Amino acid sequence: MPSISTKGRHMPESPIRKLMPYAEQALKDGKTIYHLNIGQPDIKTPDVALDAIKESNIDVLAYSSSNGSEIYREKLADYYKKHGIDVTSNDIIVTTGASEGLLFLFSSILDPGDEVIISEPFYANYIAFSTATGVNVVPVVCKIDNNFALPPIKEYEKLITERTKAILICNPGNPTGYLYTHDEINKLGALAHKHNLFLVADEVYREFVYDDNEHHSILNLPGIDEHTILIDSVSKRYSMCGARVGCLVSRNKEVLQTVLKFAQARLSPPTYGQIAAEAALDTPQSYFDEVIEEYTKRRNLLIEELEKIKGVKIAKPKGAFYCIVELPIANADHFAQWLLESFHLNGETVMIAPAAGFYSTPGLGLNQIRIAYVLNREKLKRAVYILKEALNQYITL
Amino acid sequence: MPSISTKGRHMPESPIRKLMPYAEQALKDGKTIYHLNIGQPDIKTPDVALDAIKESNIDVLAYSSSNGSEIYREKLADYYKKHGIDVTSNDIIVTTGASEGLLFLFSSILDPGDEVIISEPFYANYIAFSTATGVNVVPVVCKIDNNFALPPIKEYEKLITERTKAILICNPGNPTGYLYTHDEINKLGALAHKHNLFLVADEVYREFVYDDNEHHSILNLPGIDEHTILIDSVSKRYSMCGARVGCLVSRNKEVLQTVLKFAQARLSPPTYGQIAAEAALDTPQSYFDEVIEEYTKRRNLLIEELEKIKGVKIAKPKGAFYCIVELPIANADHFAQWLLESFHLNGETVMIAPAAGFYSTPGLGLNQIRIAYVLNREKLKRAVYILKEALNQYITL
Ligand SMILES: Cc1ncc(COP(=O)(O)O)c(C=O)c1O
Ligand SMILES: Cc1ncc(COP(=O)(O)O)c(C=O)c1O
Repeated sequence: MPSISTKGRHMPESPIRKLMPYAEQALKDGKTIYHLNIGQPDIKTPDVALDAIKESNIDVLAYSSSNGSEIYREKLADYYKKHGIDVTSNDIIVTTGASEGLLFLFSSILDPGDEVIISEPFYANYIAFSTATGVNVVPVVCKIDNNFALPPIKEYEKLITERTKAILICNPGNPTGYLYTHDEINKLGALAHKHNLFLVADEVYREFVYDDNEHHSILNLPGIDEHTILIDSVSKRYSMCGARVGCLVSRNKEVLQTVLKFAQARLSPPTYGQIAAEAALDTPQSYFDEVIEEYTKRRNLLIEELEKIKGVKIAKPKGAFYCIVELPIANADHFAQWLLESFHLNGETVMIAPAAGFYSTPGLGLNQIRIAYVLNREKLKRAVYILKEALNQYITL
Repeated sequence: MPSISTKGRHMPESPIRKLMPYAEQALKDGKTIYHLNIGQPDIKTPDVALDAIKESNIDVLAYSSSNGSEIYREKLADYYKKHGIDVTSNDIIVTTGASEGLLFLFSSILDPGDEVIISEPFYANYIAFSTATGVNVVPVVCKIDNNFALPPIKEYEKLITERTKAILICNPGNPTGYLYTHDEINKLGALAHKHNLFLVADEVYREFVYDDNEHHSILNLPGIDEHTILIDSVSKRYSMCGARVGCLVSRNKEVLQTVLKFAQARLSPPTYGQIAAEAALDTPQSYFDEVIEEYTKRRNLLIEELEKIKGVKIAKPKGAFYCIVELPIANADHFAQWLLESFHLNGETVMIAPAAGFYSTPGLGLNQIRIAYVLNREKLKRAVYILKEALNQYITL
């Protein structure tokens, strides 16, 4: 039998996937599972987007342009302008989700063996995209004790080698919920400029910012237009993950031209998704106000309930809808499996994401988990209660 | 300014893209362009598919499973069974178009430096996917004189090295329109088996087969289940290119598991596209009968009209909706540009795809063009007439 590729063998399995068989078995055993592990929001997609699809008048469902439909890119440029980011439709390439944007980006700016510095813990699929492209991820470690704030710039500088080509941040962060301050963004900009590196920000959670904090986009850093690249997506913003529409934004023409070649090879992003995404741009502000209010309440409730558990440490999130929690246990992988396999409280249990999968430094995050607060408050409260009871039982095992 | 990747620099530009600026200028100059260059069918998308979208009842436009929606994969397995290919839903991974299927495939079975033998001329984006993955394309040359039939197997064997991992065919072929015979498919299977290679068939034009010819899928080759991998798509079958739904089908579990890891990294294929694709499976046979009849008539008309041009050589297509034509000129790239830039017949001109872009052997195909017969017959006839007049004028330049 012919063998698969080395890269194929090295492709990581998602940390949550590994738990899937146990979750399936738990369901078969009749357990109810509260999913604290997923990033799929339960928030309703804006009606304007869903209606645009229902009212679409298509005869031939054709390819769109490889860089995305012209009209969508123009409206998207307006969206960024409204948010204080001055770009034109020509600075935007529409991608099939932020996922494809990341893959194109890794392919376009990084050669196999090149290094990208990423603040750790990070979105697990960054490792997948780097494996797919032969790129080396160099983690810079952030600490739960200061909510995963930017480490001192000298920590970055220590890691810079001849092969370093880019710095990647996620702002606000998945899995940390951390929101970078203006000062931190400025420092990263100066660093990228000084060492002639690309500075990439994954801002897919840009609108999910709480407590009157402000989001600072790297695209507003003055004087380093050639360095900055934004990855964005409608998936979370409008709770339309299934649309598969994201984008890459940069004022660096060479980067855009290169990304476009990868985009041309796959012909076009999804047409229906773009129709929905375009319409979603007309979502009334009240929708976001409500969503932000809901997530803020959830987050506050989550923290409040988690604080009732003895021995936990919580990184208080300022954005996104994730939260890293340190538990008084040795191995969250084992605990997560045990929750599904061996535990229930009146037939109920919870599914959590062990945080080790978000670190690339071996041994880090073993006692941490990521909680996504994409459940309504009632369920969230119940889920944390179950987690608490489970911990009590697990610790005395 | 930081530099882009080597791979990014080497990514080919699509042969048609290069003509785009000239086409834009021609439009600005008020010319009408008949597009013989594109692969976007003008055929109406089946109503069942469009209606399913309009009637979709979605609250939260969520991710689907990474391998595609369960129900769609089950119906798709039935589709294959109906077409004499015995597969289950577990043998199928839904991809974002055949394009993504090809990229995942190249990533999963081929390492950088590995070789894939592809019969030439071939779909130009195979080069893009191989460049993106660092794989080397080794062309085996097919000849217009026998309609681009399979070359003798010894031609393949001459090309096999230690790095050869796969053979890729497109059946029916883009750009050749060639349909492999049962005997040819058997020979390829024996070759793959003998040399322990993967045998991949891009069958996105599987339904476009004319003159009562029969399509032979590589998945029906007995005894080499571990070797065969099918790439498919709804783009052309139901004229729904914008859905971005394709699939990869294989009975090799290791290949599927590996492809799945790449699929998980990008989360999911488009949800709306899958709804449309699932509904499209209920397209009545009459739709296909009509479409095939239409394409047959177009092909016959195209050949008839082309034969009126002195000095052309035509590879008569048995499938797909492309045709390679050899012209009495030296350089089709130049001719194609000239058609847009310097020629018109009462304000009308044609856009063609120079065939050199479908060859990787330098110097081949220079005097050939690819014509896509995705225009209605009236337009097609007019377009070939314009081409004829243009040639007359060009030759005497
Ligand atoms: C940080 C981050 N980036 C990118 C993505 C990919 O999003 P999509 O491909 O749906 O746009 C996700 C999804 O969870 C994410 O959390
Ligand atoms: C031979 C061949 N394979 C694959 C594709 C890609 O199709 P899609 O990604 O739309 O499914 C095309 C599109 O023209 C093609 O001609």
